[in-house]
Order: sequence, then C-alpha cells, then structure tokens
Amino acid sequence: MKINRNFDNLVPNYLFADVARKTNEFAAAHPEKEIIRLGIGDVTLPLAPIVVAAMKKGCEDLLHKETFKGYPEYEGYDFVREAIAGYYGSFGVTVHADEIFVSDGAKSDCGNLPDIFAQDNTVLVTDPVYPVYVDANLMAGRNIIYAPSCKENNFLAMPDENVKADIIYLCSPNNPTGAAYSADQLAVWVDYALKNDAILLYDAAYEAFIEDGSPRSIFAVDGARQCAIELCSLSKTAGFTGTRCGYTVIPKELKRDGHSLHELWYRRQATKFNGVSWPVQCAAAEVFGREGLQQIRENLEYYKQNAKIISDALDELGIYYTGGKNSPYIWMECPGGMGSWEFFDYLLQNAAVVGTPGEGFGKSGKGFFRLTSFNSREKTLEAVGRIKNLLK
Amino acid sequence: MKINRNFDNLVPNYLFADVARKTNEFAAAHPEKEIIRLGIGDVTLPLAPIVVAAMKKGCEDLLHKETFKGYPEYEGYDFVREAIAGYYGSFGVTVHADEIFVSDGAKSDCGNLPDIFAQDNTVLVTDPVYPVYVDANLMAGRNIIYAPSCKENNFLAMPDENVKADIIYLCSPNNPTGAAYSADQLAVWVDYALKNDAILLYDAAYEAFIEDGSPRSIFAVDGARQCAIELCSLSKTAGFTGTRCGYTVIPKELKRDGHSLHELWYRRQATKFNGVSWPVQCAAAEVFGREGLQQIRENLEYYKQNAKIISDALDELGIYYTGGKNSPYIWMECPGGMGSWEFFDYLLQNAAVVGTPGEGFGKSGKGFFRLTSFNSREKTLEAVGRIKNLLK
Repeated sequence: MKINRNFDNLVPNYLFADVARKTNEFAAAHPEKEIIRLGIGDVTLPLAPIVVAAMKKGCEDLLHKETFKGYPEYEGYDFVREAIAGYYGSFGVTVHADEIFVSDGAKSDCGNLPDIFAQDNTVLVTDPVYPVYVDANLMAGRNIIYAPSCKENNFLAMPDENVKADIIYLCSPNNPTGAAYSADQLAVWVDYALKNDAILLYDAAYEAFIEDGSPRSIFAVDGARQCAIELCSLSKTAGFTGTRCGYTVIPKELKRDGHSLHELWYRRQATKFNGVSWPVQCAAAEVFGREGLQQIRENLEYYKQNAKIISDALDELGIYYTGGKNSPYIWMECPGGMGSWEFFDYLLQNAAVVGTPGEGFGKSGKGFFRLTSFNSREKTLEAVGRIKNLLK
Repeated sequence: MKINRNFDNLVPNYLFADVARKTNEFAAAHPEKEIIRLGIGDVTLPLAPIVVAAMKKGCEDLLHKETFKGYPEYEGYDFVREAIAGYYGSFGVTVHADEIFVSDGAKSDCGNLPDIFAQDNTVLVTDPVYPVYVDANLMAGRNIIYAPSCKENNFLAMPDENVKADIIYLCSPNNPTGAAYSADQLAVWVDYALKNDAILLYDAAYEAFIEDGSPRSIFAVDGARQCAIELCSLSKTAGFTGTRCGYTVIPKELKRDGHSLHELWYRRQATKFNGVSWPVQCAAAEVFGREGLQQIRENLEYYKQNAKIISDALDELGIYYTGGKNSPYIWMECPGGMGSWEFFDYLLQNAAVVGTPGEGFGKSGKGFFRLTSFNSREKTLEAVGRIKNLLK
C-alpha cells in the first residue's frame, strides 16, 4: 500500500492561522482596544427571506410521503438548471439548462474537474491565487506554472505566447485581488486557449459584484464555448457559504481528444457524487426568481457600499489598489514600501484593524494587502476612519 | 491538452436503463396490468418529524444575522460528530468524535477516498459489486481485482492469501446481495489487511438493518483501527437519499508510509470540499438523538418487515437467497436455472413484477436477481402473492 506521495508537494499554508494568532496575541495584550476585522472572507448577512421560505418548504416536502424526495439527479433538478439559465439570460448570456451541473459548491468543482483531464497536462494559474487551484492539481501530480499578476498589469495577468499551458484557471473578479478582466482581455485568453488547445476553467464566483459592464461570464466572449468551462457559486451571490450550492457550465460542443467534456464530467459526477440536497436546490432556484434577485441585491449593495467606503479612502490617501469596484475585495499596496506582514503588524498595532497579508496568496502578493467588505457598515466606517488617521 | 484516457476503460452500464425500457414496453403493451416495482433502490418513506423540525430550525437560523451560518468546518460541526460518536457507542463501538468526517454522502467518500492513495495500488472488490468502487478507481487508472461472492460462500467472499491487494472495498450488509459478514469473517479480513499492509474501505451504509448481532462497524473487530476506514450514510439509516449526508471514520492512529491517513483525508477535504449545509447538519445530529433514533426505527422496521415478507415467501418456495435479514435487499437465485435477464422477463410478463437482474452488478451475479423492500407494504404483499402463484 502506497499513499499518494504528491501530497508531499503541498506547502502548508499558515496564512489564516498566523493572522488569528497575531490577532489573539494583540487582543490579550490590549483588552481595551476594539479590534475590527477587515480580513473576513465569508459573508455575514443572512439569506433572503424568500430563499429561506423555499428552503423550509423543501424541508416540509421531506416530511410527507406524497412530496418526499429521494436520490436527486446527479446534475441537479431541471427547475434549478432552468432558473440558472434564466439568470444568465438576465445579463445577456446564453447558456442552456442542460449544460449546467448543480453542485455542493464551486470549490468542490474547482478541485474535482481536473479528474477528467490527464495527469500530464500543464496547469497555469495567475499569481496571487486562490490556493484550491494549486493544491488540487499538486495532489494529482500535475505541473503548475504561474502567470504573475502585478501592478504593471493591474493584477490582470495576460497570456504569454511563449508559454504552453493546457489547463488555465482564471478567476474574475479575482480572489484575492478584486480585479476584473474586460471583454477585450478575456478575448485574448480565449484566443490563446483556442490556439493552444487549452481549456479555461473560469471561476465566476464573484460575478454578481460586477457593476462596470465587464463580462459576468466567459460565455459572453466569442469562441469561449469551444474552450471554456465556467464555475460559479451562490456563496457570494446569495450568501450560500453555509448553505452550499454552486454550478458548473460545460457547453455541449466542448470537446478535446474527440471526447465531450460535458459527458466526461457527467460520468465523473454520476460515479463520485450524488447530487445536492432537496431543500438546498429549492432555495437555489428561488434565488434566481424575480423576487429572489431583488432580495439578494440588497445584500450585494450593502457589501458594495462597504467596498466603496474603503476604496474611496484609499483614493483620498493616494494608495494604489485593485478591486473595490466589481468585487467585495480591496487589494492595496502597502504604504511606504512596507512588506505584507510588516503592514499587517503596523495596522494591527496602531489601528487595531486586521486584514490579510497579500503574500499569503502567492509570491506576487508581496507588498500587498487584502481588505474585505463583509464586516458591518458601522465597523467598516470605524476601521476606515482609523486607517485614514494612521496613513494620512 | 489531453483528457483522462482512463475514462475509456469504464464499461457503460445500462442496467437500470434497460430495466426501465423493458418495463415501459410492457406497460405500453399491457395498460390493464398493475406493474409493481421491487427493484427500487431508493427509500420511499418520509423523514422523521423531529429530523425535519431540526432542519427547518436550521433554515430559520440562516434568516437572522445573529444565528446566520457561513462556511462550515470541512469535517463537520462538532455537535454532529459527537452525535455520530454517540450513535456508535449505542451499539458498543468506540469511535471518537474527532475521527469522524461529515460529508454530503458515502458515495462521494467512496469515490474520493482513493485520492489519498497512490495510483499503482491494486484495488480488490467483491463481485457482485456496487459499481462506484470499480468506476472511481478505473477513472484513476488503478488495477482492479475481483473476489467472487457466490452460493458456495453464501455471497460473502473471503480473502485469498495468494492474492495481494492494497485497497479493499467491503460492503456489509452488502449491496446488492444483502449478505452480512460475521465478526469471525471480518476478523479474517482484518488479519489479511494487517498482514498485507492493505487498507479496508468498509462501507457500512446498511448497518442500521442488522438484527442478528453481526458487527455494525468494522471497528467492532480487533485490529481494525490499524487497517480500516469506515464509510457510512444516513441515506438508508434515516431516509436521507435526497437530503444528502454521510460520514467517514478514520482512526487517528491509522498510518501508511509514515503518513496519517486521517491527516491526508483532512487535507484532501480542506482542498476539494467545503463542508455540509447547515440545515442538513442540524437534521443529521437530530437523527442520532434519543427521539430521533426512536422515530427512524419505525421506518426501518417497516422496510425490514417487507424484507421478511419477501424472504418468507422464498423460504416457502424453497428458493435460495441471501439478505432479507440484516438488509433491505433480497438476492435470490433465479428459479429453474434461468439467467438473470431471462427471469426478469419471465417475472415481468407473468406477474408484472419488476426486479433487478443480478448480472448487472458483476459476473458473479449471473443467475441471480435482486428484490428490494422499499415499496409499500400493500404492494409488497401483492407482488409476493403473484410471485408465489407463479413459482409454486
């Protein structure tokens, strides 16, 4: 018996553990200080009432023989897939209901989708990066290459024609930088993928935050149906981080090696997954109804307003950042040439504000710092006041 | 870009599609006949009231800022893991809460657990077999060997000392045969695993049906903590097929190649999974409370009584079978030397009763046939009456 030795290649990431430890030490040393956490990566506002009502109705169904639900379809119930297809239509993108796979979350799909690809493909990720893309592929023994995002490209890495990649993860709006690709930039990526026979795994988990007309789906770009798979999630769109639901779109015509990727993924899911909980699917469908969309918009606006409060302050202070628009994340340059952890300590010690050191997301994050808009309005305002006082 | 060519090794299984097609053809040709399906592999009775109440309460929590739940722990909430540990204790098996991983179902865990093992391990399954064990490992390019279950060993395959296996799937009570290993038999498997440095992946999904004192967990067997991982599910225990919740137990001391398998699986889950829905975890914990256990017992008894009605009839007819006790499945020998499909047609044409041809579960299923106890009492009685009339 041999274990999977590729796990040895995983680099333990103590980012959030170190943040918590330092924060706790500061709290113990300064019990009188009110610490404000602008490092939160999780939503904090409750679900929309109509969504919870649908979820409860789904629970009630399970209580009666006549409405009881057993094993769901592996790819999700049709009414959920149709609701998602309708949502795509609402921002002008055509995706067919039968191209959609409903899942327990985009993270699972990000990690599991490589199952359908050979081990000896080269994976490209942009750096800084959501660690799941890297770790899931290291576990499978794949070679990973990095496209640096940096101030010079506004943290929107573009393809290098001299580099040959087979599987490319793009996240737009990006976690952690908040930067969102324009249609023209995505067209360049699609072009690269088509020329290189590559597949784009496009993580659109933050699409609901887009407000400047940037594409909300890779399928808004010509040619994407021949080279892209899109992953999305209700986590940030509708506060489903603890409710668990996501979806993946694989165009029916998307083929490689003569195989339909849609069919391969269906086979993978049919074998290693058994569908999403009935009440959760009921809730998910309701998110994309007319009233659901209206109700979730209130929470999205709340977070967006927080993001604007933070980015307005950085504008005032003349600090470079990405995100703040189109994203719940603000990715700021550490002032005065400080390093990520240096600035973390400085902000904690002098303003009792906690953020996330950018270098925790990859080499290219050095000297940067992530703030998030998921705290309350009141605390966000207070934290921003302290930051302005400190850095002005 | 290369796809995973191991998918080419998957054999398409049209078992249930063929059953449905033949059944529909018969229904079209004989609209006057009432067809009774004893091939159902899914539960049909609703969830226990106290479980649904807990699930609804979980939904309500998501509606209020004070009780809202975001990202869950990857391994499940402590109160759920403690409830499961308590359940183990109720039948005399010690499993620690922190050895338990809560998941969206045992099927996912069955399919994903091999992620932590190297590709060049040899996988052993008993035949007939739950197809997930085979297909998940074929996808990963592993070699699979079969231990035949047959009439001679009462469909309880035992290890062959001349065969070297690294990963061994055991399912007891078995799907599809309903046969349950005794403590002595499991001790032989544990002994084999320890001698061969192998790992048992023990699927206990049907343990709640055990009534004759057979072990309900591999951890009832000495030495198992050094060689076994147990997978279990609330699907059949508490009717969660559409609610989705399972759990996997990996003893902390279980190591291979100097690595803790518990830690490897934690790392896998932390990377490629994001935990189980809050309302579902609330419901799962309630299953294992005092009142929950009492309420789920009613459904279990109902199915068990159906199984007894079927197996009593086979006893009367002098037909060999396994299961019927300890299991919702009855695995019968086709009468008169008929083949699996031959008997399927015979039963459909002459009694309008539908079952599942055994050869759909593997070579060793030839000449056998699976009946299930998940239909209503009334229809089970009616079907059994017809079968007795036909075969007496």
